[in-house]
Amino acid sequence: MSRFSARTDFARTPNPLALALERHRASGRPLLDLTESNPTRVGLPLPDAALLAPEDAFTYQPEPLGLVSARRALVADFAARGAQVSAAHLLLTASTSEAYGWLFKLLCEPGDNVLVPAPCYPLFEHLARLEGVQTRSYALPRAHGFGLDAREVAAACDARTRAVLVVNPGNPTGHFLHEGELAALADVCVDRRLALLCDEVFAPFAWDAVAPGRVATVAGRALPMLTFALGGLSKAAGLPGLKLAWTHVGGPGHLRDEALARLEWVGDTYLPVGTPVQRALPALLAHAPRFQAAVLERVRGNRQRLLAARPRGATWDVVPAEGGWSAVLRIPRVPGEEATCLALLDAGARVQPGYFYDFGGGAFLVLSLLPQPEVFAAAVEVLTRTLGP
Amino acid sequence: MSRFSARTDFARTPNPLALALERHRASGRPLLDLTESNPTRVGLPLPDAALLAPEDAFTYQPEPLGLVSARRALVADFAARGAQVSAAHLLLTASTSEAYGWLFKLLCEPGDNVLVPAPCYPLFEHLARLEGVQTRSYALPRAHGFGLDAREVAAACDARTRAVLVVNPGNPTGHFLHEGELAALADVCVDRRLALLCDEVFAPFAWDAVAPGRVATVAGRALPMLTFALGGLSKAAGLPGLKLAWTHVGGPGHLRDEALARLEWVGDTYLPVGTPVQRALPALLAHAPRFQAAVLERVRGNRQRLLAARPRGATWDVVPAEGGWSAVLRIPRVPGEEATCLALLDAGARVQPGYFYDFGGGAFLVLSLLPQPEVFAAAVEVLTRTLGP
Repeated sequence: MSRFSARTDFARTPNPLALALERHRASGRPLLDLTESNPTRVGLPLPDAALLAPEDAFTYQPEPLGLVSARRALVADFAARGAQVSAAHLLLTASTSEAYGWLFKLLCEPGDNVLVPAPCYPLFEHLARLEGVQTRSYALPRAHGFGLDAREVAAACDARTRAVLVVNPGNPTGHFLHEGELAALADVCVDRRLALLCDEVFAPFAWDAVAPGRVATVAGRALPMLTFALGGLSKAAGLPGLKLAWTHVGGPGHLRDEALARLEWVGDTYLPVGTPVQRALPALLAHAPRFQAAVLERVRGNRQRLLAARPRGATWDVVPAEGGWSAVLRIPRVPGEEATCLALLDAGARVQPGYFYDFGGGAFLVLSLLPQPEVFAAAVEVLTRTLGP
Repeated sequence: MSRFSARTDFARTPNPLALALERHRASGRPLLDLTESNPTRVGLPLPDAALLAPEDAFTYQPEPLGLVSARRALVADFAARGAQVSAAHLLLTASTSEAYGWLFKLLCEPGDNVLVPAPCYPLFEHLARLEGVQTRSYALPRAHGFGLDAREVAAACDARTRAVLVVNPGNPTGHFLHEGELAALADVCVDRRLALLCDEVFAPFAWDAVAPGRVATVAGRALPMLTFALGGLSKAAGLPGLKLAWTHVGGPGHLRDEALARLEWVGDTYLPVGTPVQRALPALLAHAPRFQAAVLERVRGNRQRLLAARPRGATWDVVPAEGGWSAVLRIPRVPGEEATCLALLDAGARVQPGYFYDFGGGAFLVLSLLPQPEVFAAAVEVLTRTLGP
């Protein structure tokens, strides 16, 4: 009968860890979940629900790039972060996932490829594959604190490479892009005719005061390559259920304008963003700083709890980082990631294995720093007990 | 520098009609717009705005197929229309456009094709092209009142055809699918291994009592091919700004289940539908009948105005139809569609030319039946004057 496509033929066999988690849940035993990264489930501040019913919320005004009033609110938000951008260069989508889909359509023929960092949150391969696009990995060297090495980017290119994806700060590695790294990356982009897609969803979550040379955003910069900077309400305001994200388009004027004209056309085809959330955007962005301050207090506190719990001379380490919502632990290669995750689950705590994020060169665990302090502290106790000294 | 894809290389040169419209707008002269199909701009009933801020609207619960509570509300809605469906076979997306994108990804490799009706609203070609998929047209013969002729579908197939799209009732032709047409179409689908994608967004808008043999929905039927029935709040409740649509997956169990498993995976990649609108869905569906009744009164009244205004022995005709929001006029081939539209614009009324919808075999105009009666009546006066006896 009917046939299905190769691009949706994904492996659906659960791995041993997923099966163990299912058994744990079925047993009804409690679980200290250090994979929880849903900001609406960990007691962080929410905006007033009345914001969801703004004036004129039903009147439909199809705008391919998003309502101008919403894009102007974003211009003010970028300005508050020191970036001068124009509303005409901003595009709204329901999510950054959707924005990636559109950018892959914009830049790639089926069979072309884009470069993605390793380690990284595992979504880009799926997003690309659904557009008929392939991914090639470039390593974020551990020796550089998982920072970007432009030589790795250049080495990963082939003749069909169209773009390089950078996550700033890295997820889950928490390394911010630095000026020197960006300059070297720009040379590779110009040389290989690559566009830069920069995921800045965690950029508002730097743990310390602005460090010299740290790149807060690539938006509003005079960069020599076509550049897309992606952000969204999901992380910036802790509101993943409202479905609003943004992309700033920059780079040489003729490329930027051609990209915008094509994206406007794509936007007109899908018109994906709800009217109420667009009308509420100024108020939701006004709420964001309160959410961000609460997250920073939470993640700093939990990271401190983790560092304080590490016994002197432990066989595991907390990898240095500068921002984001996660902590990365380097653990002994033996028994390794999966066995350690299974042992932790057995002891009542859940963490992610490094392989989920395509870590290489060692064994790693990834912890969310978002859970409530009492949950986090109890989980860290299980962790230190299980990992041993 | 950077390169852009062929799939987003769309013609962006405005046609003479678009240029004339721009000039008309710039002149500040009034315009009676019979292309207005935005239900929020023509004085139709809206729900209470408080519905937009339902309880628990911020708590994010990612469900790849959509919240079960929302899908259960749709089951009740299908039941009220006489279709027995299961929540497990329903999928939510932000729009039917997005659903088409997912279905093209599901069924087609890049380079495969799908069959689309002609005439039809011109969106499918764009949606397919963005997925690397081609469209092939099958004619809705005018001799059959623009109804479906399965032989035309069979004749349009080639070796890479994967699906056939049917719009029920046709947009803008307003012909409902009939049982005999569906039976013949099912034979072609089985024979050629095609999936059926049935767009039912206008199905709630039948102008007369249910006619014998009219297909109200393909959902919940025991059809021999993989079948997708698409609907959404945009038309059913007149709320295009809220961004919620649904797809029912049916057909042979093993195909249906494989399709749902893959779509669940796609849904998990994008998670496109807002939480507030999903939580509000039961209340929004409860509002829909009030909107539908108001639309039916509006379109019946406007169609009556149009028919009453036609002079005896006129050289133009109103094409017979059974439902939807549009009227189709057959006009003389000379001066033809574009010249007539330009003359109407000059006289202060805007309509769509048939070529916009890929009509063939004559000259046609398409009018929205949604505008307020006083606007519609005034436009019809311009129309009758311009078209002459």
